Amino acid sequence: MVVEKIKDVREIIKSQKKQNKKIGLVPTMGYLHEGHLSLIKKAKENSDFVCASIFVNPIQFGPNEDYNKYPRDIERDIKLLENQGCDLVFIPSVEEMYPNERLTTITVSKITDKLCGAYRPGHFDGVCTVVAKLFNIFAPDIAVFGQKDAQQVAVIKKMVEDLNIPVEIIASPIVRDEDGLALSSRNTYLTYEERHAALILNKSLKVAEKLLVSGERSAEKVLDAVRKTLESEPQCKVQYVSCVHPDTLEDLTTIGDKALIAIACYIGNTRLIDNLLWGVDE
Amino acid sequence: MVVEKIKDVREIIKSQKKQNKKIGLVPTMGYLHEGHLSLIKKAKENSDFVCASIFVNPIQFGPNEDYNKYPRDIERDIKLLENQGCDLVFIPSVEEMYPNERLTTITVSKITDKLCGAYRPGHFDGVCTVVAKLFNIFAPDIAVFGQKDAQQVAVIKKMVEDLNIPVEIIASPIVRDEDGLALSSRNTYLTYEERHAALILNKSLKVAEKLLVSGERSAEKVLDAVRKTLESEPQCKVQYVSCVHPDTLEDLTTIGDKALIAIACYIGNTRLIDNLLWGVDE
Repeated sequence: MVVEKIKDVREIIKSQKKQNKKIGLVPTMGYLHEGHLSLIKKAKENSDFVCASIFVNPIQFGPNEDYNKYPRDIERDIKLLENQGCDLVFIPSVEEMYPNERLTTITVSKITDKLCGAYRPGHFDGVCTVVAKLFNIFAPDIAVFGQKDAQQVAVIKKMVEDLNIPVEIIASPIVRDEDGLALSSRNTYLTYEERHAALILNKSLKVAEKLLVSGERSAEKVLDAVRKTLESEPQCKVQYVSCVHPDTLEDLTTIGDKALIAIACYIGNTRLIDNLLWGVDE
Repeated sequence: MVVEKIKDVREIIKSQKKQNKKIGLVPTMGYLHEGHLSLIKKAKENSDFVCASIFVNPIQFGPNEDYNKYPRDIERDIKLLENQGCDLVFIPSVEEMYPNERLTTITVSKITDKLCGAYRPGHFDGVCTVVAKLFNIFAPDIAVFGQKDAQQVAVIKKMVEDLNIPVEIIASPIVRDEDGLALSSRNTYLTYEERHAALILNKSLKVAEKLLVSGERSAEKVLDAVRKTLESEPQCKVQYVSCVHPDTLEDLTTIGDKALIAIACYIGNTRLIDNLLWGVDE
């Protein structure tokens, strides 16, 4: 079922809640791939009525980012979601989501100053604000986000905690292509050659994993190895390589029980991110 | 019933909602007077299960404001609320509301830059953040706020609209003492002499009302008359005198259907506010 209006969503959700159905929400920006579909699967395992939203949220894109050229294929998305057993697909217009001059912004400080946040000022304000809106529209019991956007998961969890939003946030593992490239709607921007060069991201994380498995606990040593691997690919320009705690996103010097190795690189003009979550059951 | 823990509130509300009870919320900072009790009355008229919160919210006080000396009398408050037929009183500790380092802030821009917001930087961030938390804890159908804090009403309505929070905001008219002074917990700071001098606030609004009734539509003329009246009282130091639209808080030059004449003054060391809502049914 495809719904475009907020008031229609509210009515449907109300009737589902009356039947004691647990509501699951998967917010997306569309142009879906197997990664998104794994989120729907995860939502189905954890709720009774699974909703997805498709909304390319203008306020989370910077002025020089790819809002206008962000890939869209709504018809295909709807089919994929229905095949996956998604019960409701919410596809609002920009006017439906932002009908009047918006004055309200939700900001999560500190943990948004680093990793992607350092290079995308205002991005997480836009993410938090739209996600809070979706939570208020759906009142979901659970919401599923992809672990590929590890910082987004940490930021949304913190927002939910700080604002007492009654929703359980579930992070779902990264889905990779057979060759190891993390799935992303932005992979469509890559030329054939760049697509091949992009494999260096996953390769560099494999190097990190090998070091961790062998007992290396110095973040500096692990990060050096990751960076060297990335720099071995001439088409790869590293934006950041970080080793942080997965919840607080605080930089680690010594790697303890849990760590997140997060990277962002440009391959040509396409910015890609990837990460390795260490010591956390997924 | 007095409740201190968020999880207990959630359980009680859940059971009330199962009985299809409409939930009403009146957020307060305690030290209650007839003004607060009128909010409870209004909530009872508009819902089935009326909740009040008493929480002196530290994050809405500036560093030089009166957080520590803000008056408190919890035992008296509880009795007053129970006598008024309030069903649940939520009295959380600061640790219950802010257990970990808070990183999340809700900001409403533009309409918070003026009136009280201009003199209390960060105040409305604190208000919006705590009110959103209370809305997430109670999931009320309606929430009642005093029209005395006219800017607060406008800011919360805008936040609710922008974030799609499913709650109806009801503003309740100013309650005055017999001599015309708007009730405020901060009136307790006034000496006997200051209490008398403070009557000038209401008197100045009466002057404005008289002009409006007589057909005056120039905001400048009305505001001049208000200011002159206030300045006739030697103990009164005017902070602002404004004539704005009650929803957008935009300054008016010509007064149309609706207007808000809002004033803030110091009487001695005590900051008092008052306002006249013109052309709006209360």
